[in-house]
Amino acid sequence: MNAVPTALLRETAELSETVTRPIPGSHKIHVQGSRADIAVPMREIALADTPSMFGIEKNAPFAVYDTSGPYTDPAYCVDLAVGLPALRAPWISNRGDSEPLTDFTSPFTRRHATARELADVRFPNIPKPRRAISGANISQMHYARRGIITPEMEYISIREKQRMSAVGEAHLLKQHPGQSFGASLPKLITPEFVRDEVARGRAIIPNNINHPESEPMIIGRNFLVKINANIGNSAVTSSIAEEVEKMVWAIRWGADTVMDLSTGKHIHETREWIIRNSPVPIGTVPIYQALEKVGGVAEDLTWELFRDTLIEQAEQGVDYFTIHAGVRLPFVPMTAKRVTGIVSRGGSIMAKWCLAHHQESFLYERFEDICDIMKAYDVAFSLGDGLRPGSIADANDEAQFAELDTLGELTQIAWKHDVQTMIEGPGHVPMQLIKENMDRQLEKCGEAPFYTLGPLTTDIAPGYDHITSAIGAAMIGWFGTAMLCYVTPKEHLGLPNKQDVRDGIITYKIAAHAADLGKGHPGAQARDNALSKARFEFRWDDQFNLGLDPEKAKEFHDETLPKDAHKTAHFCSMCGPKFCSMKITQDVRDYAKEHGVGESDALNEGMAEKAAEFRAKGAELYSPG
Amino acid sequence: MNAVPTALLRETAELSETVTRPIPGSHKIHVQGSRADIAVPMREIALADTPSMFGIEKNAPFAVYDTSGPYTDPAYCVDLAVGLPALRAPWISNRGDSEPLTDFTSPFTRRHATARELADVRFPNIPKPRRAISGANISQMHYARRGIITPEMEYISIREKQRMSAVGEAHLLKQHPGQSFGASLPKLITPEFVRDEVARGRAIIPNNINHPESEPMIIGRNFLVKINANIGNSAVTSSIAEEVEKMVWAIRWGADTVMDLSTGKHIHETREWIIRNSPVPIGTVPIYQALEKVGGVAEDLTWELFRDTLIEQAEQGVDYFTIHAGVRLPFVPMTAKRVTGIVSRGGSIMAKWCLAHHQESFLYERFEDICDIMKAYDVAFSLGDGLRPGSIADANDEAQFAELDTLGELTQIAWKHDVQTMIEGPGHVPMQLIKENMDRQLEKCGEAPFYTLGPLTTDIAPGYDHITSAIGAAMIGWFGTAMLCYVTPKEHLGLPNKQDVRDGIITYKIAAHAADLGKGHPGAQARDNALSKARFEFRWDDQFNLGLDPEKAKEFHDETLPKDAHKTAHFCSMCGPKFCSMKITQDVRDYAKEHGVGESDALNEGMAEKAAEFRAKGAELYSPG
Repeated sequence: MNAVPTALLRETAELSETVTRPIPGSHKIHVQGSRADIAVPMREIALADTPSMFGIEKNAPFAVYDTSGPYTDPAYCVDLAVGLPALRAPWISNRGDSEPLTDFTSPFTRRHATARELADVRFPNIPKPRRAISGANISQMHYARRGIITPEMEYISIREKQRMSAVGEAHLLKQHPGQSFGASLPKLITPEFVRDEVARGRAIIPNNINHPESEPMIIGRNFLVKINANIGNSAVTSSIAEEVEKMVWAIRWGADTVMDLSTGKHIHETREWIIRNSPVPIGTVPIYQALEKVGGVAEDLTWELFRDTLIEQAEQGVDYFTIHAGVRLPFVPMTAKRVTGIVSRGGSIMAKWCLAHHQESFLYERFEDICDIMKAYDVAFSLGDGLRPGSIADANDEAQFAELDTLGELTQIAWKHDVQTMIEGPGHVPMQLIKENMDRQLEKCGEAPFYTLGPLTTDIAPGYDHITSAIGAAMIGWFGTAMLCYVTPKEHLGLPNKQDVRDGIITYKIAAHAADLGKGHPGAQARDNALSKARFEFRWDDQFNLGLDPEKAKEFHDETLPKDAHKTAHFCSMCGPKFCSMKITQDVRDYAKEHGVGESDALNEGMAEKAAEFRAKGAELYSPG
Repeated sequence: MNAVPTALLRETAELSETVTRPIPGSHKIHVQGSRADIAVPMREIALADTPSMFGIEKNAPFAVYDTSGPYTDPAYCVDLAVGLPALRAPWISNRGDSEPLTDFTSPFTRRHATARELADVRFPNIPKPRRAISGANISQMHYARRGIITPEMEYISIREKQRMSAVGEAHLLKQHPGQSFGASLPKLITPEFVRDEVARGRAIIPNNINHPESEPMIIGRNFLVKINANIGNSAVTSSIAEEVEKMVWAIRWGADTVMDLSTGKHIHETREWIIRNSPVPIGTVPIYQALEKVGGVAEDLTWELFRDTLIEQAEQGVDYFTIHAGVRLPFVPMTAKRVTGIVSRGGSIMAKWCLAHHQESFLYERFEDICDIMKAYDVAFSLGDGLRPGSIADANDEAQFAELDTLGELTQIAWKHDVQTMIEGPGHVPMQLIKENMDRQLEKCGEAPFYTLGPLTTDIAPGYDHITSAIGAAMIGWFGTAMLCYVTPKEHLGLPNKQDVRDGIITYKIAAHAADLGKGHPGAQARDNALSKARFEFRWDDQFNLGLDPEKAKEFHDETLPKDAHKTAHFCSMCGPKFCSMKITQDVRDYAKEHGVGESDALNEGMAEKAAEFRAKGAELYSPG
């Protein structure tokens, strides 16, 4: 521990209650794996009983996937200056193929580790880095291809199953067949299935050995669709404490990974704070920091400087790197006639470099050297789409697809090195052109996971681009995209604040879940069924708590019917007691149950008599028990 | 005018400035038709020039479809107690096939027109009703089938074209081919095309002759996708003044029609205020009011009472009626095993009635009698989906499709009477089951316009159902749905307030526009192109003003960069000046322009030399003019 509590330490120690308080109606549980140290966190939602005229029906508690880490566990004592427990450390060291280094490899890191002027912003307990022993490949893909099931793989298989075995059968059985466009969804996700998908390159497990605090997760078309949230300070605004808080906030709402896109001051230090405290994989775009190192002058970038930046970040524990290696010199002029040119920051930096030097991109030319770094720490590639369309007009154009095809080539090279790889995708694409993106990606990139930004399905709604893009995200997720990069309402306009992050994440959880339903992911519909049953039975709190944002649902309900009594009211503010269709339906159903009606035959035979009886009883059989 | 200003009059006179202030950067224009009284309102957005190193480029002002009526016109003096000018009155009377009545036909209306206790809530200037002369059919479909192009049809043809002729050719030419799933989108919307579509039943023009204040609009698959907003008080909350203000608010943001779903006190009076002040078609669900008239006891409903309610509302000027005539007795038991039974209020009322009486629905049995009323006022059918699924689990089930097929039968009957007809659709439907809904509707209902509620693509996000449903709405709009009924964030939880209405409408404008782009509606992409060009050129105000919600966009931008100087800043808060990819791209492009680069050949030939030159000039050719 740092003896002197600096302003930053005081600030970060005070993670606000908003981001850590337990999520209503639920608590954290751990599902045990084959050994004591495989304990997979989930969030269990308690449900009320269903009262009926036939007695009490129990509703089993419902477990959901939980990305929030220990922060939502009241038993866990948060100390950001210490960081999270290194859950995976023994797994990593037990493999015996990596070793701790005596010091950081990057001179930049060494300088930053001691510079006096950084004392106030530096994370106080920086761990020593690890690296593969000479000649070893320590990627999960490498293990998978050698037939090894790692603890990470078992952990993931439990996590993906979401304890479906405990869900009432009724919920599980009631699921529409999906349309999966050629995905290979298993009935049951086993550790062996996880291994096989990673071996084939159809899924990645981003978990740098220098980020042992992370809870293993998987990104692949045959698993639950994941979402990423971007955070990051910029030259214009925000501080380290804010970014850490934003990360905790993002995972609270369901971010499966977080990208730190900082470009401002103290990039290195901010990242250290975030990684040490993050239970989810952290991604970065190393070229941003490289550019900072050359004072923002793109043409001054060099391979050596970039290489050092990769190592710097790999030894901090970044789990995946966005590398814009597909922005090749001959593709740059293809963008000149676009409506919005090059909109990716990384893409435009590299385009500028290529043009200034009239040379092929060093990212492309040095790709195998980059692979060597990746496999020494198990950093995954996220091959960046630097030429993605920034407007509907530019969708699916020559430049975009030339780059995508190149990313396909590079995927083959990465796989030759057993380096885990996913591919980034657009951007702005109208609905009718979305499928072509997915089809081409699958074909050219050998089914490597696709990771898309939206896509936004129209340009005309600044202020609402979480929505324009959720439409495209749900569709492309359905078609086969493995991870969706969120877009917040502030897209194109400003930096997201907390509320924007929450809106962006919930919106993307919706898109991802809609995609899971569309594909027919086994068990995906169980939560819909449980929530709808609660809704129909006027179990208001259960309806809120089974939702993606219980706090917001309750707040909205309370705006019109604030009283506690209304939480058990068998009507709601929309229609009032007399007009409630749910209530009327319950009458119809209770009646049908009691009298054995419910089949067309029964109805046709004895209905007239039953109708008379129904009327005689006042046509109100519903008992408000 | 009512001589005594009651509390209500004072309240309604004070329509708040929020709902009437002009929309930033734009003003109302009128596009002239073939005669003086056909002047179609649009909203023209002024655009700034594009400065560049080659001089000034003018950006033509951009006209957009405008539903807001005169309220956003500063020259118009609002007096809600007088109502809007009766724009269509001469068109209607000149046709000579309808006549003013000396008094209202419905005894209910006559009672309400004079009842002393209603004086305080009654609209003070109720016009005399009109009706077709004996034996006449005055529906737009009837005219269309006889080859008559009405002024309404010409008005619509101008409105739908959105003054595309004035848009720069570059914007118009740059549009991706659509995928239209068999729609017949014309290159140019002519009055004759409008007539032909109405004659075929593929489009409807909802405009009751007793609502001459309405600005004609069309709902059909081969026109722009429309959206509806629901308003309405309930027993639990809200007042007449609030509802009128909500209507004006809804059309400000783009509601093409408004449904008044009031179920509380003063339904009749509220509706009168709304219709007299509404420039958009008003729809209702007459069974709600009928149920009020029998004290909420569904089994006490009778055909006679319902008939009187239809006439009451038709003579007020309701433009379309939701009639749940497809909820037939044999279909009711099909819902007994559903997760959420019957969720439509109208559907459950009729189901209860059928069950209680063991009789076929009077709406179904009296359907031709209803047609006779519809054609005497030109009220359009919106055939209600009373058995729509209320949860993902219940999507596309037997009950839902049995009803849909029945609506197809009824459409044929309505068309026999030349009564305009559209069909309501679901509801809650996962993505992979959406297309089946559209395909079946087209097939069974002879391409009558489909009008869907969402559909919601998952049940698990109460508080965000505008988004869960926008995904489904955009998709089904693309597949061929003509109008999308909005869903607000309060769906399932409470009654929407103003902010919810705005969120719901903008969300649905997004879905509708995404659908227009997907289908390839001619010119639909022009607005995207204009906005993206503005965005790329850092014309911030133009970007805001071309968007669906200029106020929100500006507000978001100003949160991080509030100063006026930043409205012309060639960077933004997301990346700061050094990292701006748009700026870098502009450098690349300006460079390419100046040096004749832009073709791969040129690049390959002389690039090395040019690169040196570029570097020598400091690699910053962008001039901040």
